[in-house]
Amino acid sequence: MPDHDAVEVIAAKRDRHELSDSQIDWVVDAYTRGAVADEQMSSLAMAILLNGMSRREIARWTAAMIASGERMDFSSLSRPTADKHSTGGVGDKITLPLAPLVAACGVAVPQLSGRGLGHTGGTLDKLEAIPGWRAALSNDEMMAQLESVGAVVCAAGDGLAPADKKLYALRDVTGTVEAIPLIASSIMSKKIAEGTGSLVLDVKVGTGAFMKDVDSARELAETMVALGKDAGVHTVALLTDMATPLGRTAGNAIEVAESVEVLAGGGPADVVELTLALAREMLAGAGRDDVDPADRLADGSAMDAWKAMIRAQDGDPDAPLPEARESHVVTAPASGVLARLDAMAVGLAAWRLGAGRARKEDPVQAGAGVVWHARPGDAVTEGQPLFTLLTDDAHRFERALASLEGGYDIAPADAPYLPTPLVIDRVS
Amino acid sequence: MPDHDAVEVIAAKRDRHELSDSQIDWVVDAYTRGAVADEQMSSLAMAILLNGMSRREIARWTAAMIASGERMDFSSLSRPTADKHSTGGVGDKITLPLAPLVAACGVAVPQLSGRGLGHTGGTLDKLEAIPGWRAALSNDEMMAQLESVGAVVCAAGDGLAPADKKLYALRDVTGTVEAIPLIASSIMSKKIAEGTGSLVLDVKVGTGAFMKDVDSARELAETMVALGKDAGVHTVALLTDMATPLGRTAGNAIEVAESVEVLAGGGPADVVELTLALAREMLAGAGRDDVDPADRLADGSAMDAWKAMIRAQDGDPDAPLPEARESHVVTAPASGVLARLDAMAVGLAAWRLGAGRARKEDPVQAGAGVVWHARPGDAVTEGQPLFTLLTDDAHRFERALASLEGGYDIAPADAPYLPTPLVIDRVS
Repeated sequence: MPDHDAVEVIAAKRDRHELSDSQIDWVVDAYTRGAVADEQMSSLAMAILLNGMSRREIARWTAAMIASGERMDFSSLSRPTADKHSTGGVGDKITLPLAPLVAACGVAVPQLSGRGLGHTGGTLDKLEAIPGWRAALSNDEMMAQLESVGAVVCAAGDGLAPADKKLYALRDVTGTVEAIPLIASSIMSKKIAEGTGSLVLDVKVGTGAFMKDVDSARELAETMVALGKDAGVHTVALLTDMATPLGRTAGNAIEVAESVEVLAGGGPADVVELTLALAREMLAGAGRDDVDPADRLADGSAMDAWKAMIRAQDGDPDAPLPEARESHVVTAPASGVLARLDAMAVGLAAWRLGAGRARKEDPVQAGAGVVWHARPGDAVTEGQPLFTLLTDDAHRFERALASLEGGYDIAPADAPYLPTPLVIDRVS
Repeated sequence: MPDHDAVEVIAAKRDRHELSDSQIDWVVDAYTRGAVADEQMSSLAMAILLNGMSRREIARWTAAMIASGERMDFSSLSRPTADKHSTGGVGDKITLPLAPLVAACGVAVPQLSGRGLGHTGGTLDKLEAIPGWRAALSNDEMMAQLESVGAVVCAAGDGLAPADKKLYALRDVTGTVEAIPLIASSIMSKKIAEGTGSLVLDVKVGTGAFMKDVDSARELAETMVALGKDAGVHTVALLTDMATPLGRTAGNAIEVAESVEVLAGGGPADVVELTLALAREMLAGAGRDDVDPADRLADGSAMDAWKAMIRAQDGDPDAPLPEARESHVVTAPASGVLARLDAMAVGLAAWRLGAGRARKEDPVQAGAGVVWHARPGDAVTEGQPLFTLLTDDAHRFERALASLEGGYDIAPADAPYLPTPLVIDRVS
């Protein structure tokens, strides 16, 4: 590999030049080896954030991150694979019903997930609320479970894209998370290294998401779809609303319970709608659009796959879920219609109640979170319960309540209410 | 001090907001204490480089860097003080004749200097070519020498603006040196902390300088003059040419020898011109514009002050200077007029011969450097010596010669030659 110098590469991006393939390969490799220091990579990350990257640069950066580690290979499985990634939202428990549902339709779902940081929850944190369930699987265990059950949700090993792991931790503390080239390459390097045959991206838009507006969400979606196609992965993205939180719960155990309701054929309409929309995209990507996932919810086979998936990872799907020690009810201050429920306000409240973590070493509370008893468009009566706040530590209520202030509006009952679509757009 | 968070401060500058006084005070203090990490400060530095800072932000940043350390006080001296700072150029030995010259005119010159890094030389490296001379003085020694001799050139202690020291080392390896707000605050924090009554800035413009064009040099000059005025320091800046190297030598011992020629009443015309121009500004700033420094060069009193200054720091001004072991002469490839001599090419050649250092731990060679035997506008004859290259290591000639290639033009003898002014502008 030709030798470069960190300052040369930083200065090139600072001065708005395109980085060469050789510069990108060198800097990603040298950073992974420790030959480029954290303070050099963070300065480069800020220059990338402010000056951007071309499609070619992003593709090469992604390839360099994939090359920093191992790649998985699911080609020996007897069925096709499909994976889904969400950019993160409040109450976004979709992976929980989705993975067993798609498995029940005959497509294997290898879902390598992360833990939550900040106001959006983490899929592993949610599943760990189930007594006995473990997130860490060896590659052999994962392959065996994909063959037998068809669905795995587990922690990504250290071997996949280690450059991304190191860079993500750095971006988190240096104000450089919000760079579309780096978000896209971070997500896609892991998904491509994971070796899935097809991928559906759920790109969230709104107050509770990274991307606050549709234009930047579309740019991120288009960037990731192009990266997937270049790497030979069938990739589709849905832009979905995250101005309002999903379902009726944000937390860990309470989101598991809501997911089980969906698998049992019930659950909030928006969670069901998004689960089915993503399932249909995954099935189409895997060449199985002959199957209607709604049938598998109705006939109980998705629930069977869920229970098998939980049991395969030592969890007890029938055990009672942990409950928070303390609860606090917020009642509606007026009668009318709930006109707005802000995803960020709810996510922050759940986080402050203990459902999420401030630093990656922090534990989370299985029982903590927020339940909302009305969704936008629902009629509410003065004095009825509007939110139930759950935590093990009563002292957390005060700051959680503060974050809910101004986070919802009640309009007169006769005010016009215009529902916003859940699926805003599709990028393929 | 109110508590802030590094990511909050970085994100504010990243998103093009002005930083508050409180954010600036906090981040500079926290970085000095180690509570803000290098990778956070480098990301912030890149955001400052790309998004800029207002005059208010720069002034506050400078004040915060001054507050990170001690301040000196020359008010007990029996004469006024004046200081000079050059942004760095090739063959820029002006401090050497200037400090004793101004002292000979009755104004004290406390010149805290640095070592060279890269292609521009360092004043301390040059003086260390004089047998016995030492750069490190205690504050008491410095005050005593200012009172007795009137001029001191010595190393800045660790106590002045330690935040700047730490930040400068970080910027050097993170591609963030070229930020005008950070260059201006770095220079001015040290000069204001040093406590001089008046200050003259020599802002270099051209290929051999940091600032390649007049507009950016003027912006830097105006920023620094405003910072000085705000801090109560009488400050003037001259923009001077650095497309052509100064004098006839770039190195250490050879620049000392050239400086002594100037003090003896001779020397290259451009070195004499710039020395007198800066001396006049320093004298005016200190309220002594009744004195003509040209008289003090002519009557030998500047030379007396030089010898006293060198002796006070244990140097022997009459000892022979070190000479390089190897030399190589480059002859003129054609007859005509030297139309261009590039400062960067000459600076790089001197650096590669061993006159400068690549890393701050490296030693320099006292005898190494480049002598040029013609200046732009001079007639040259094919085969006459054009450059003499000096080094202790003959293997260095090859790379030094490579850097001189394309670094000069010889035009036909009858081609029109338009000299460029040495002093381009004055900012006050």
